[in-house]
Amino acid sequence: MVNIPQRGFPVSEFAARLQCAQSQMVSQNLDGILLMSEPEVRYFSGFHTLFWLSPTRPWFLFIPIEGKPIAIIPEIGAALMRETWVEDIRTWSAPSPDDDGISLLLDLLNPLSKQGGRLGIMKGHETSLRMPLADYERLMTSLPGLNLIDATSLVRSLRMVKSAFEIEKIAHICTIASNAFARANEIFYEGQPFAETFRAFRMECLAQGADDVPYLAGGADIGGYQDIISPPSQRLLQKGDILMLDTGATFDGYYCDFDRNYAIGKDDELSRRAHDTLWRATEAGLAVAKSGTTCRELFQAMSGVITEMDYQGGDVGRMGHGLGMQLTEQPSHAVFDETVLEENMVITLEPSLSYGDGRIMVHEENIVVQNGAPRLLSRRADQELPIIGRG
Amino acid sequence: MVNIPQRGFPVSEFAARLQCAQSQMVSQNLDGILLMSEPEVRYFSGFHTLFWLSPTRPWFLFIPIEGKPIAIIPEIGAALMRETWVEDIRTWSAPSPDDDGISLLLDLLNPLSKQGGRLGIMKGHETSLRMPLADYERLMTSLPGLNLIDATSLVRSLRMVKSAFEIEKIAHICTIASNAFARANEIFYEGQPFAETFRAFRMECLAQGADDVPYLAGGADIGGYQDIISPPSQRLLQKGDILMLDTGATFDGYYCDFDRNYAIGKDDELSRRAHDTLWRATEAGLAVAKSGTTCRELFQAMSGVITEMDYQGGDVGRMGHGLGMQLTEQPSHAVFDETVLEENMVITLEPSLSYGDGRIMVHEENIVVQNGAPRLLSRRADQELPIIGRG
Repeated sequence: MVNIPQRGFPVSEFAARLQCAQSQMVSQNLDGILLMSEPEVRYFSGFHTLFWLSPTRPWFLFIPIEGKPIAIIPEIGAALMRETWVEDIRTWSAPSPDDDGISLLLDLLNPLSKQGGRLGIMKGHETSLRMPLADYERLMTSLPGLNLIDATSLVRSLRMVKSAFEIEKIAHICTIASNAFARANEIFYEGQPFAETFRAFRMECLAQGADDVPYLAGGADIGGYQDIISPPSQRLLQKGDILMLDTGATFDGYYCDFDRNYAIGKDDELSRRAHDTLWRATEAGLAVAKSGTTCRELFQAMSGVITEMDYQGGDVGRMGHGLGMQLTEQPSHAVFDETVLEENMVITLEPSLSYGDGRIMVHEENIVVQNGAPRLLSRRADQELPIIGRG
Repeated sequence: MVNIPQRGFPVSEFAARLQCAQSQMVSQNLDGILLMSEPEVRYFSGFHTLFWLSPTRPWFLFIPIEGKPIAIIPEIGAALMRETWVEDIRTWSAPSPDDDGISLLLDLLNPLSKQGGRLGIMKGHETSLRMPLADYERLMTSLPGLNLIDATSLVRSLRMVKSAFEIEKIAHICTIASNAFARANEIFYEGQPFAETFRAFRMECLAQGADDVPYLAGGADIGGYQDIISPPSQRLLQKGDILMLDTGATFDGYYCDFDRNYAIGKDDELSRRAHDTLWRATEAGLAVAKSGTTCRELFQAMSGVITEMDYQGGDVGRMGHGLGMQLTEQPSHAVFDETVLEENMVITLEPSLSYGDGRIMVHEENIVVQNGAPRLLSRRADQELPIIGRG
């Protein structure tokens, strides 16, 4: 049995996150940051609930230039927010379509607007506006003095580098998913309805200690799958199928994100070669994934191997990404991303290739960037495509 | 074993949804609707994937005034979208921070802008902008002729009334969750770590046939819980605890959403009374939940019973809501919501009350609105608070 990390974080962790944010806010001359997305609100407050799945209510956290975050949230979240380190909690009885937190936000932000202050909001790549657009427009019209500044890169730069506590949680869920994949030969079988394959894997992850398996996608088809983001099809696993499952399981709100490929009963020459090529591409990534390497260089190291077999390099747009509170986080291992890797970033290496008749294969590992060789969090896949129930 | 409904929908279902939308678009003088959120894109296309969990890429579906929807999506989704009834699929290699679908959207919408057309987007209550705000602003600046119209109520009016196929899926997942709760006495026990309580319930739902359990929240404490949206605390279930689990499990992308309360080993007078009051409030709701009743009237019927015990009526803002592709959908059973219930709306009845020393209790059932008495989808809770492992 693996050691289960402590849940939650010491208050010192939140204090440190806040201090880093405020120090960057000073240098960027920001007077505050208004956050409204789940990972950001959780990152600075510790407020952790699946209730975000309900789209009904907006939630706000304000980071002032001095002092602790201020929560402006629906009353239904007050009890849980009081368990966090946040002290200033302002609530309203939501939903309230005519005023879903807007008056409370106006009270908070009016002084900033009057002094022509600079308010950070996240409006850049990979973000969403997690409140009704009409309410946002109304709010901003009422705060004409406010200068809105994109705080995406500020927040992203903090979140990309993980603390020891965060790494421990991600390592734990990677071990759990690795243990679940290790039982592939026992839980997957020829003739299995694909929906049952998914169900068996979810149950195995839970039995191994996962809190949840929010993401599970996969493909299976003779000689290779053609799609990597699907829910299960209605077919049965057949001899000659190449099966891929890609999972984002969670522990205490932190994700793993990796996949594994299997041949059902027997493999085929091309798929075997694709798997070997992807494995070696990952090795090439592992060899350069250290502090100081750029994401672009990491991409190039992997695609250099991929081009042995596939000149297009798949078309998923990148070969891995950041990992943590979300299934996918910044940075992206792609030609456009010049982010320099730093110690304690947690990332995926995810080369993919197209082959045969419209087939695609993906392969993924999760690692912690270090000054030397990376620390593998997922248990390294076999170089050879494994065969389930060979006989 | 229950009959498992067919997955997916016949094309005729999507054609009917589109026809309803286009007929309303004509009467509202809309030239098109641009959608970008998961349930809406899925509703009109059938595109079903958990990949939306990755925040990296935006996805767009355009509903023209005539003809089929047009998908503007990342290349990684093309294979899956080709499985749907959508024919016009335009893709780009995403992520691409400098142009994540924007050029493709401009090509599509420029003619509309030039003729001063009216474009529907969802910007009202319970919506989010599921693309970077900066990209949205850039897009709209480039389309100065466009008149943006809020299409929230148009889309919402379609989605609120469910088809027979949709009801069958929701009924199926409600049966599965009911079967899982029916095993409470076997899977929950005094001394159980609360995280294990959650895990056992998730595994039971999967074993009973759920695809997934995206939402699970709960509370447990001596004499009643104080919070209803929390992940599991680190305590063990104790004799005298009132335990509540609230689940949103899914089948084929459709949710159930209901909760159940249990006393561990023994109950207490106040909690027993609270449970009875909530049960009777739900009866009052069931008695009036039919075509022609407004959501406000439904709220009043339930709160009339609640006030026997609690004058505040909890402060969660409403006593139930719509249910389907999302854990919570419109309408809201609340004083502010004048929506008239129609046949084949699927809704929750969810009275709650505050009692004792800061305790809260919730109680929830899922029903289909009919012309006469509603059809219960969740198996009706016992009037009396059930006791686990009495002895």
